[in-house]
Amino acid sequence: MTPQLVETAAVVLIGNELLSGSVRDDNLVELARTLRALGIQLKRGYIVPDTIDAISEAVRSASAQHDVVFTSGGVGPTHDDITVDGVAAAFDVPVVVSAELCDTFRALGDGNLTDGHLRMARMPSSACLLTLPHLLWPTIVMHNVWILPGVPTIFRSKLEMVREYLRGPRPFFHASVCCRSDELVLKHAIDRIVSEYCDVQIGSYPQWPAGEFSTKLTFDATSEERVVLAYHAFLELLPEGEIIKRTEAAAAREGDSGAS
Amino acid sequence: MTPQLVETAAVVLIGNELLSGSVRDDNLVELARTLRALGIQLKRGYIVPDTIDAISEAVRSASAQHDVVFTSGGVGPTHDDITVDGVAAAFDVPVVVSAELCDTFRALGDGNLTDGHLRMARMPSSACLLTLPHLLWPTIVMHNVWILPGVPTIFRSKLEMVREYLRGPRPFFHASVCCRSDELVLKHAIDRIVSEYCDVQIGSYPQWPAGEFSTKLTFDATSEERVVLAYHAFLELLPEGEIIKRTEAAAAREGDSGAS
Repeated sequence: MTPQLVETAAVVLIGNELLSGSVRDDNLVELARTLRALGIQLKRGYIVPDTIDAISEAVRSASAQHDVVFTSGGVGPTHDDITVDGVAAAFDVPVVVSAELCDTFRALGDGNLTDGHLRMARMPSSACLLTLPHLLWPTIVMHNVWILPGVPTIFRSKLEMVREYLRGPRPFFHASVCCRSDELVLKHAIDRIVSEYCDVQIGSYPQWPAGEFSTKLTFDATSEERVVLAYHAFLELLPEGEIIKRTEAAAAREGDSGAS
Repeated sequence: MTPQLVETAAVVLIGNELLSGSVRDDNLVELARTLRALGIQLKRGYIVPDTIDAISEAVRSASAQHDVVFTSGGVGPTHDDITVDGVAAAFDVPVVVSAELCDTFRALGDGNLTDGHLRMARMPSSACLLTLPHLLWPTIVMHNVWILPGVPTIFRSKLEMVREYLRGPRPFFHASVCCRSDELVLKHAIDRIVSEYCDVQIGSYPQWPAGEFSTKLTFDATSEERVVLAYHAFLELLPEGEIIKRTEAAAAREGDSGAS
């Protein structure tokens, strides 16, 4: 199977529990790293409560402006699991019970379908189901919207499907350097590199209180050569003793916590 | 000083690093818990990259639909710190250098203002500055938009200002119970309580894989009496041995990790 080529993505994080502070979101960073390693640019995120209007409004806007959208949360058998309804409303289609999802529940259980199973077998009409041989559960995809569960362990298992089915146009390259001084001291060097390498995304991240280092500089682009040039040009502007640690230019990989 | 009464809030999380997975956001959950304890409802979140257009679009939409908006990130002396510009663009006002912020930098430093200081002294024209005696740094507030820094330690220190200056109309009350069974088993009991207590926000949160418990049920409302009634009605529907742990109804407080 050839993965589908997509360039831009958005995520819609769904759940009252995220907005009340009851639960700390874990899924944004996992999705972001997976997409980064695939060369797909995550451009926007929305955090919305468990209402059909809020979900459909965010999904409609995200879907129109990005190649692919991922929702996180609101999938399950209870009253507050209304993401399917919100996505259906975003595309103005009815919700139907999927025969294929019913078959999945029958196969997983004792053959009987409970009310809960029937609720979880609902999907937007004209959605399709993506499967992988070793994952029990299909993923509902409506147009360009992937409906993913919010429970972090299950969300992460679904990212395997993302890696299988989607690919960005080209890899991202990344380098970084952690500096002893704070941003105010480094500002002139940063400004100079930013003005000379406008095609490289340069990020400057202070640590406060300063630990081992005070400021991390990151260099990102789809051109490896430009990342290498910007990064080394910056290193040359730094006085001795300024560099605490550095990461040479490389393609972004999923394991990178430093990918930026 | 009497705190300002506000009912609804939104947050705009700003930074390429959040969308690339380089940095895990810590500020949403902290803000959410602070607002919850104040009786203010956080209704929506936006995650946007470091571009003036993206920031201004999110801030404009958030500001129009909520009583108060908090931005997180993009405040500092470097090129990628453009939140002030984005907020100014959202309200169609110019950016000016604040004499009061310049005085702050002079007082904190050796009296000299560097390029970096001057950049950090910028604010949207007609913004105001909020201060607290023991916090070094004023907070820029433009109309109903509070511009907060992204560095988590500084963000948290700014929440003290939020607690000082803002108050919700009434406290939220909360109760919860952690159950042995999964949602499919509990569904009938949950559905019954949901239909009988439509003025109580009832949340059902599965753990997967199940640990000590499988499902956490939460009961939230501004009426303590209704939370107590819904919570106890639900407990009575549970068979023996189902309750793993429970939290009786109480007003949401900031220390609650269980507030929902």
